[in-house]
Amino acid sequence: MAEHMDPEEFRRAGYAVVDWVADYWRTLDQRPVVPRDPPGTVTAALPATPPAHGEPVAAMLADLDEIIVPRVTHWQHPGFFGYFPANTSGPSVLADLVSSGLGAQGMLWATNPAGTELETVVLDWLVELMDLPARFRSTGAGGGVIQDSASSATLVATLAALHRASGGRWREAGVDRRYRAYTSTHGHSSIEKAARIAGLGGQGVRTIEVDPETQAMRPAALRAAIEADLANGEVPAIVVATIGTTSTTAVDPLPEIGVICAEYGIWLHVDAAYAGAAAVCPELRWSHAGVEHADSYCFDPHKWLLTGFDCDAFWVADRGELIEALTVMPEFLRNAASESGAVIDYRDWQVPLGRRFRALKLWFVLRWYGVEGLRAHLRSGIALADRFAARVRADDRFALAAPHPFSLVTFRLRAGDEASAALLARVNDSGQVHLTHTRVNGRYTLRLAVGAPLTGPEHVDRAWDLLSAAATDILAGVTSTGGSARANTPPG
Amino acid sequence: MAEHMDPEEFRRAGYAVVDWVADYWRTLDQRPVVPRDPPGTVTAALPATPPAHGEPVAAMLADLDEIIVPRVTHWQHPGFFGYFPANTSGPSVLADLVSSGLGAQGMLWATNPAGTELETVVLDWLVELMDLPARFRSTGAGGGVIQDSASSATLVATLAALHRASGGRWREAGVDRRYRAYTSTHGHSSIEKAARIAGLGGQGVRTIEVDPETQAMRPAALRAAIEADLANGEVPAIVVATIGTTSTTAVDPLPEIGVICAEYGIWLHVDAAYAGAAAVCPELRWSHAGVEHADSYCFDPHKWLLTGFDCDAFWVADRGELIEALTVMPEFLRNAASESGAVIDYRDWQVPLGRRFRALKLWFVLRWYGVEGLRAHLRSGIALADRFAARVRADDRFALAAPHPFSLVTFRLRAGDEASAALLARVNDSGQVHLTHTRVNGRYTLRLAVGAPLTGPEHVDRAWDLLSAAATDILAGVTSTGGSARANTPPG
Repeated sequence: MAEHMDPEEFRRAGYAVVDWVADYWRTLDQRPVVPRDPPGTVTAALPATPPAHGEPVAAMLADLDEIIVPRVTHWQHPGFFGYFPANTSGPSVLADLVSSGLGAQGMLWATNPAGTELETVVLDWLVELMDLPARFRSTGAGGGVIQDSASSATLVATLAALHRASGGRWREAGVDRRYRAYTSTHGHSSIEKAARIAGLGGQGVRTIEVDPETQAMRPAALRAAIEADLANGEVPAIVVATIGTTSTTAVDPLPEIGVICAEYGIWLHVDAAYAGAAAVCPELRWSHAGVEHADSYCFDPHKWLLTGFDCDAFWVADRGELIEALTVMPEFLRNAASESGAVIDYRDWQVPLGRRFRALKLWFVLRWYGVEGLRAHLRSGIALADRFAARVRADDRFALAAPHPFSLVTFRLRAGDEASAALLARVNDSGQVHLTHTRVNGRYTLRLAVGAPLTGPEHVDRAWDLLSAAATDILAGVTSTGGSARANTPPG
Repeated sequence: MAEHMDPEEFRRAGYAVVDWVADYWRTLDQRPVVPRDPPGTVTAALPATPPAHGEPVAAMLADLDEIIVPRVTHWQHPGFFGYFPANTSGPSVLADLVSSGLGAQGMLWATNPAGTELETVVLDWLVELMDLPARFRSTGAGGGVIQDSASSATLVATLAALHRASGGRWREAGVDRRYRAYTSTHGHSSIEKAARIAGLGGQGVRTIEVDPETQAMRPAALRAAIEADLANGEVPAIVVATIGTTSTTAVDPLPEIGVICAEYGIWLHVDAAYAGAAAVCPELRWSHAGVEHADSYCFDPHKWLLTGFDCDAFWVADRGELIEALTVMPEFLRNAASESGAVIDYRDWQVPLGRRFRALKLWFVLRWYGVEGLRAHLRSGIALADRFAARVRADDRFALAAPHPFSLVTFRLRAGDEASAALLARVNDSGQVHLTHTRVNGRYTLRLAVGAPLTGPEHVDRAWDLLSAAATDILAGVTSTGGSARANTPPG
């Protein structure tokens, strides 16, 4: 301690940490999915000041077991059905370990040539694997890059769109016109956040109504909003369409939206954060019809493709527009490779300057599973969702809230919002499963999202059994035994 | 393969990867610091499509050795003196492994209670450790958060500043006034990038002249720029002052700048990305005089504090302003804990929604080293820089370009820019060291930044010996044997 850890100490401690992770995974099913302790529990258990003298790794591992892990929400738990999955896998974790060990910071090609080229290659692999438009390939005018999240992808797409909509003026003049962004009422909150960050303000976002059956954006309403804005002297800059909305995994009609964007010269960004992974399976590529219209597109391998957070895969059809929008070249970053024009400097494709070597984890995952292994994982999630949806459909007390084309099922109790909210609180209070909620057509709706690698039929069946039993109690007027405040704390 | 990796397979493969990392570190000194292969080498060595069937981890490790690592820039190499260090350490790597294994996504307190609270606690620890202003503590109105980088910290500071400067109007109206940001001519490029992202445009950034001796911002020039902008109907929103500029580690005069910001009601953000770590040592706290004026402050533990990239520590004096600027609350994220107001949801402190469990690595590093261990590391870097600077100072052919209060030394050949540029190319071509360059008072200047954990006196002396010998050749008119294009590729 106090000294640097030498390679042999690292080897010994590293084995111990590998054991710790293996044991965590082995025992995950025995833990409650979500912790119950009130806010402040961890804070109270930790000292108020850092230690004066060094401590051994064993001390940290002991505190992990004692203080930290009992208050972690277990996203990899087979009973975790909340939000969207953020699944990881052995090969992803191992690749991240290699990345941490190398400690290479790839802001420029010159500062990590292999990391830069591997990233470009694996993103080209994904274009092939998902049958994405050829113009996204780096071998043409496009290219892919790893962002931390779909939020950041939407932000950089918005910036490139402003660059284009302004005719290049925005870089120097900033937001000096009333630029507008469009998405459906079920577009992700990160679209509003990106618009705010980019200086468009809440007023700069037009939320377009959805079809109440499909929950997908209505193209006619999009066109009407664009026309109204143009008539009012506003400048339509970007449309963000979604493949797989957060509430219900609705798919916006890209063929029609794409034509509208082309007609008005508006940047089309496609946010497929969760459902993009589905395109790995040929039978699900209907969901990507019209994606050839996209100026940019992203999905999150860290959601449903077994690659640990953070890993968002983002492509543009014209990398030149993106780079022009984002590049700043100070003297201290000048180098011959960049000036040769023969290399990609990924700092110009993202908000931060520095970057980790994240391509390694995508590379390890793609190689460990192979195409067939990834397809098997995705199909398993869809089959489990179908299995669960069949239970819901067969029970008159329940109603499905929307179609379930992927691995998310949305449903509610026919008895109403209050009963549905009580149902969520009660099943989550069991500690065996964790679901979250949304609103669909204004009604309180439960979401069950399948995706953790350990989730099997028995976990989905257990979720249904818990829901069914809780529904019986709730509809009979039996109140939950747990305090409602506590029961409500974890769900989200 | 093709199946999920089970815990026992992970254990075996994990040991192999730990061994791989330990062996990498053990042999790091024997590798060239920077690869020599031309662009495209890695791309050409990789297949054009992903594998149909799964492969074992051993295959990935073999390709790592064969294809990847020979083309990585070795930031942890003891001869790496480029840019600023991005140093990591054993405890940081191990904590990241735990974080990857947990796979917990902490966008909300509810989605990782322990991760959220541990982050708040370790950032409070750093306030104590660095004697930062008490108002940055979470126990008052302030608080700290981990950002990916100082670039993102500057961006969110800019957004909070716009929120304040607009009187709350910006959230809805966007950038509808000519807001202005101020930094010195040696402020980091991320400040211009943040202003561009935020919609201020290049025109929104005022670069304030520096004192040619100290390279620090001249407060009188800052005041004059603000006055001129106000007279012109522009709205001063933020001043970004730097502790430790990238070119020379100059320290802007915060006591004077802080008074000016207070007088005009302008947000003061302090970017101490590299040199902030110095405040861990009491004898270096002079560099932070006046930091009590800051509305926000950041430094990068991933630069000089042994915590692997990415880890920027960012504090605000009033967390309410930051949260108001960034929060968006969709139904699918609503939860009882957030609505109670008793918890921190870090998604509202940053650009992305999702977040990894990065507090673990800071916690492991602070505990492994303890306060005394961290101070020893920082003091070692400063002593090595002093040792190197003494060599430069004693050689009439060389001149120091600026003061060297921390672990960066800037210098040039008196013979001029061309000779200095040739010197950089030649020493980097040796493969034994890697330095980068900048311009100081318009003149080409070499930078030697100490910080990798393995760097000792022998490595700094070797760097000097290489520089001295190369200077002898260059000043005698002997041309480099390496092709100049190739020699120039790596430096940056």
